[in-house]
Amino acid sequence: MIRIAMIGIGQIARQQHLPTIAAHKAFTLVAGVSPVPVVLEVPVFPTVAALRESGIGVDAVAICTPPDIRYALACEALDAGWHVLLEKPPATTRSQGVALLERAEAHDITLFSAWHSVHAPAVAWLKDHLPGLSVRDIAIVWKENAEKWHPGAEWLWAPGAPGVFDAGINALSILCALTPEGVVFRKAELGFCPGRGAPARARLALETSDRALGIIGEFDWLHPAESEIWEIVWSLHDGTTLALSEGGGHLLRNGKPVPIGDRPEYAGVYDRFAALVAQRLSDLDLRALDLVTEALAYGRRYAID
Amino acid sequence: MIRIAMIGIGQIARQQHLPTIAAHKAFTLVAGVSPVPVVLEVPVFPTVAALRESGIGVDAVAICTPPDIRYALACEALDAGWHVLLEKPPATTRSQGVALLERAEAHDITLFSAWHSVHAPAVAWLKDHLPGLSVRDIAIVWKENAEKWHPGAEWLWAPGAPGVFDAGINALSILCALTPEGVVFRKAELGFCPGRGAPARARLALETSDRALGIIGEFDWLHPAESEIWEIVWSLHDGTTLALSEGGGHLLRNGKPVPIGDRPEYAGVYDRFAALVAQRLSDLDLRALDLVTEALAYGRRYAID
Repeated sequence: MIRIAMIGIGQIARQQHLPTIAAHKAFTLVAGVSPVPVVLEVPVFPTVAALRESGIGVDAVAICTPPDIRYALACEALDAGWHVLLEKPPATTRSQGVALLERAEAHDITLFSAWHSVHAPAVAWLKDHLPGLSVRDIAIVWKENAEKWHPGAEWLWAPGAPGVFDAGINALSILCALTPEGVVFRKAELGFCPGRGAPARARLALETSDRALGIIGEFDWLHPAESEIWEIVWSLHDGTTLALSEGGGHLLRNGKPVPIGDRPEYAGVYDRFAALVAQRLSDLDLRALDLVTEALAYGRRYAID
Repeated sequence: MIRIAMIGIGQIARQQHLPTIAAHKAFTLVAGVSPVPVVLEVPVFPTVAALRESGIGVDAVAICTPPDIRYALACEALDAGWHVLLEKPPATTRSQGVALLERAEAHDITLFSAWHSVHAPAVAWLKDHLPGLSVRDIAIVWKENAEKWHPGAEWLWAPGAPGVFDAGINALSILCALTPEGVVFRKAELGFCPGRGAPARARLALETSDRALGIIGEFDWLHPAESEIWEIVWSLHDGTTLALSEGGGHLLRNGKPVPIGDRPEYAGVYDRFAALVAQRLSDLDLRALDLVTEALAYGRRYAID
């Protein structure tokens, strides 16, 4: 049994992590860390230092705070000798991620970047079936209403935030997982609302590293709440389309549903974390973060009226 | 003898690469590639394809074109089975660099990112002596006049260009080479001239991955031509300062010159390339490019009057 503490008890922790841990045979929740008072069935401490001082035995932590404070918390947790699961994105930048991996290796413990969308049932089906197919192009459409999901959240739009890629990085994590030949950034256009430091819209042009296949991504954070889209479509040379929708929960072949598994995303996340901890291995995938960073760095910026 | 062709016969090729190759015992120049007609003592072809069709025996190429076309040319050269040296920066983005490395490995040939500043004499001295010293902080000041070095060049300022980091990435390449514990991005401020898509000024806050040491970088592309500065200063806990100046050509300890070697930068670049080719090893260092990309992506942008 892996004794796990939850750092950051917000929406994603309550909706996904805590129920998944409660149901998972490899984990037992022993504590929480939250700077604001919250009630759990286990002790909750205001800081990582307070948890350490409590003397409670901890083997691992899941860090589910907002992204900008994850790096410092992960350093503390790794220095305490705890295996670390990081919600997506695993860090604000690649240089932070690399530093965390080196720290984990120095302590001989596990660092795991939990790209939850990669564990969606449709992704597993595609991982099995795509390698035998002749793909012509890939199109991502990821459009949602930021205000619906994060009402009034100013950090979403600050300089240094990933903007529309806060959601869109899920699509890119799936894309990278299903494109073993590698994905290369070509160009980007980024739409900014007046006075905001992070983009609300983005259009990406990518290609596979064998240069055989073009990939287009359209990301929108200002989409009407009633018609949101989270879709990746693989168009094959024989005219077939495979459309992953609902962020990975459904798969359509030529518009007809394909039967896929039903193990929930976060069960897969914790299966993987348990397996890594058992072997003291790390899995830090920074490819989707790289594509976002490259788009924000080198994309052409325009103003949204 | 490594038969080498030069791809891109501009200023850097003529000032550094061609004289260095002519003087180096491991290399012999056999051809050039240039889309605009130029005269060399060896045949010059308009494209890589034309060089291949010529039947001239080529073992390696040095790619010294503007950065934005290096990726496609490097793919062609690697597919021809030629070892590749890339002028800095080795690619526009990390995802391109990783794709090139995988291509080189698939062909079992050498890919080498030639960060020339890393081969400056002062860097070798510092590599030997810094590990024994107790450093308190590091400050980079890299200020030059873009118009003096690249008169009228519009590509410097286009969206997708690195702006002031076109020069400043040399400082970051030295920093990364001399900071084995790793460098982590913290924050950046980027100054943009009106109507331009790449920054003219930047201020970086970095830290070492052990979080023990702060690093500040000041970069300016609008500095007066008569007082340019390319300097990195290590301040030690005992009050000593070590100042690398002239981009690595000089070193001062507490203001007094330290005797350093005098082997020219590019001789070191080609020594290293020859050694890599002999062993069919690659050396693709993307750390300085990562820091630039992170700064451009996540830095706060402001307008320069």
